[in-house]
Amino acid sequence: MSDLPKQIYIKEEGPREGFQIEPATIPTADKIALIDALGLTGLKHIQTVSFVNPARVPGMADAEDVVRGITPRDGVHHTGLWLNNQGFMRALATGKLHMEGKLTLYASAAFLKRNQNRTPEEQRVAQPELIQSYRQAGVPVRTGFVTAAFGCNFEGDIDPAHVVDLVGQMRRIARDQGEELTLIGLGDTMAWANPEKIRRVVGGVREAHPDVAISLHLHDTRGLGLANALAGLEMGVAHFDAAVAGLGGCPFARHSGAAGNICTEDLVLMCEEMGIDTGIDLEALIDCALMAERIVGHPLPGKVKSGGSLRGLRARTAPARAAG
Amino acid sequence: MSDLPKQIYIKEEGPREGFQIEPATIPTADKIALIDALGLTGLKHIQTVSFVNPARVPGMADAEDVVRGITPRDGVHHTGLWLNNQGFMRALATGKLHMEGKLTLYASAAFLKRNQNRTPEEQRVAQPELIQSYRQAGVPVRTGFVTAAFGCNFEGDIDPAHVVDLVGQMRRIARDQGEELTLIGLGDTMAWANPEKIRRVVGGVREAHPDVAISLHLHDTRGLGLANALAGLEMGVAHFDAAVAGLGGCPFARHSGAAGNICTEDLVLMCEEMGIDTGIDLEALIDCALMAERIVGHPLPGKVKSGGSLRGLRARTAPARAAG
Repeated sequence: MSDLPKQIYIKEEGPREGFQIEPATIPTADKIALIDALGLTGLKHIQTVSFVNPARVPGMADAEDVVRGITPRDGVHHTGLWLNNQGFMRALATGKLHMEGKLTLYASAAFLKRNQNRTPEEQRVAQPELIQSYRQAGVPVRTGFVTAAFGCNFEGDIDPAHVVDLVGQMRRIARDQGEELTLIGLGDTMAWANPEKIRRVVGGVREAHPDVAISLHLHDTRGLGLANALAGLEMGVAHFDAAVAGLGGCPFARHSGAAGNICTEDLVLMCEEMGIDTGIDLEALIDCALMAERIVGHPLPGKVKSGGSLRGLRARTAPARAAG
Repeated sequence: MSDLPKQIYIKEEGPREGFQIEPATIPTADKIALIDALGLTGLKHIQTVSFVNPARVPGMADAEDVVRGITPRDGVHHTGLWLNNQGFMRALATGKLHMEGKLTLYASAAFLKRNQNRTPEEQRVAQPELIQSYRQAGVPVRTGFVTAAFGCNFEGDIDPAHVVDLVGQMRRIARDQGEELTLIGLGDTMAWANPEKIRRVVGGVREAHPDVAISLHLHDTRGLGLANALAGLEMGVAHFDAAVAGLGGCPFARHSGAAGNICTEDLVLMCEEMGIDTGIDLEALIDCALMAERIVGHPLPGKVKSGGSLRGLRARTAPARAAG
């Protein structure tokens, strides 16, 4: 009935997604404490900061200080996000981050124009240059990402065949530069996906490119995040981006429009309950989610942090069952 | 790959679920306004109030006034909830509600003891008496409901075979009294379900009782509500309980523990985007969700009311696509 994976791999994006939308009043030490706590949960990949213009994103002005302060654990990749060469150089200069290059194409020309003021052709041409600068720095490029792969507020629905074509383009660009992409990220940037669309797009990519892994980046703006993740799991997807406590989103009107990724601990609970291994200690992760909520000082959208896991309830009810 | 239904039927429980957990300060006129607005969205079944002890549930002390004030629409069933004969008589006395009898068994003996101070045997014996009092009042009994069908905070996991057995018991009890159940509700009362468990329990009931429809009542305490609904849809389930705006739940700590049903407009968006007809005007429903939030005076957990539907975005982007 489905191709459920035995194990999934989560890239934790909460610290980066969350703190970049908060005002610059959150103490650097709090960010470091959260990232270090996340490093003890079993998460293997934590995107910690973004290297962006501090005038435009004041919440990330302390990116270097955050990276300097964290205590990396063996086997945990701490990464950063950047949007241009300057950001890449800042990330590299920390000397402390796991460096990975990524190619990005946009499924929506209208969104690309708005976001980067580029045409699709200009974006394509920029990718080989990007690979070259990564290679010069000794940074491998293994991931290709398709932004707005399911739909766009400025362009409407996206044809799955177009996404499949973009994946092919990215792989060819990489190969021409002597690199081989092994992971393709599909971004539901503006929350246009639904479970059927996930099946069509993931199915199309999987059929045309059976030799690459697929990763889903699902924003929860319309509440379908975990249902979309389930549809992905059923298509064999084993890589997901997620944000602890749903950092990056907020149920409050003051943050209206800000919609985070799917919540890490909610995804972990779903997977573990379904028998899919996440490698993550859910109780420790819930503690991180509660810490994240204390740090930002307002409710965050994740549910399991207040609803609780089922493991403790099972442990408490087991003796009663054995006795009864 | 799945048995997705072409159409689903939603029982709106928001007014009852939501207002019964709020303090008794919400004006009766506001409740009436919301219920009347919901009656114009295409919803065919709205559970409006509960007839319970006003000392214990002050938010429902005005149940009779609410029912008196609403304006029923053709083809829309307004119903009430009751827990005992006294409540049933109050509902009947309004003369204005669509009256339906329901049998209820508990999959968890521990929860039944806590909730009703009864043993499973006492609960079974009470059902024929219930049918008789319904019959005397000319009220048909078509629905059987299994409480805690997926797990229980006080008893742990529930064996799907036990749920299948309870459904058989209810159907036999009904037949012995000359009634035939046509709809079986499965309640995830304490949010223990996950998509795999939904498949096992729904699959078991469907296999043993292929001639009854199945309805899911999914609490969203752990954020899996819509993913569980998706698993139900894939098993052919076409009946869902839901609450506009997620009324009955609240992201605030002050309401911690209170966890609502899945949010009606989020479910409607998911279904409509998947090509499943709901018969509901999503834009009108979103207006109701925003009204509900204004009435209770605090954020409610539904996402689509702030994230927005996709129809308007599609309409706006269509001309650009046609021109480009």
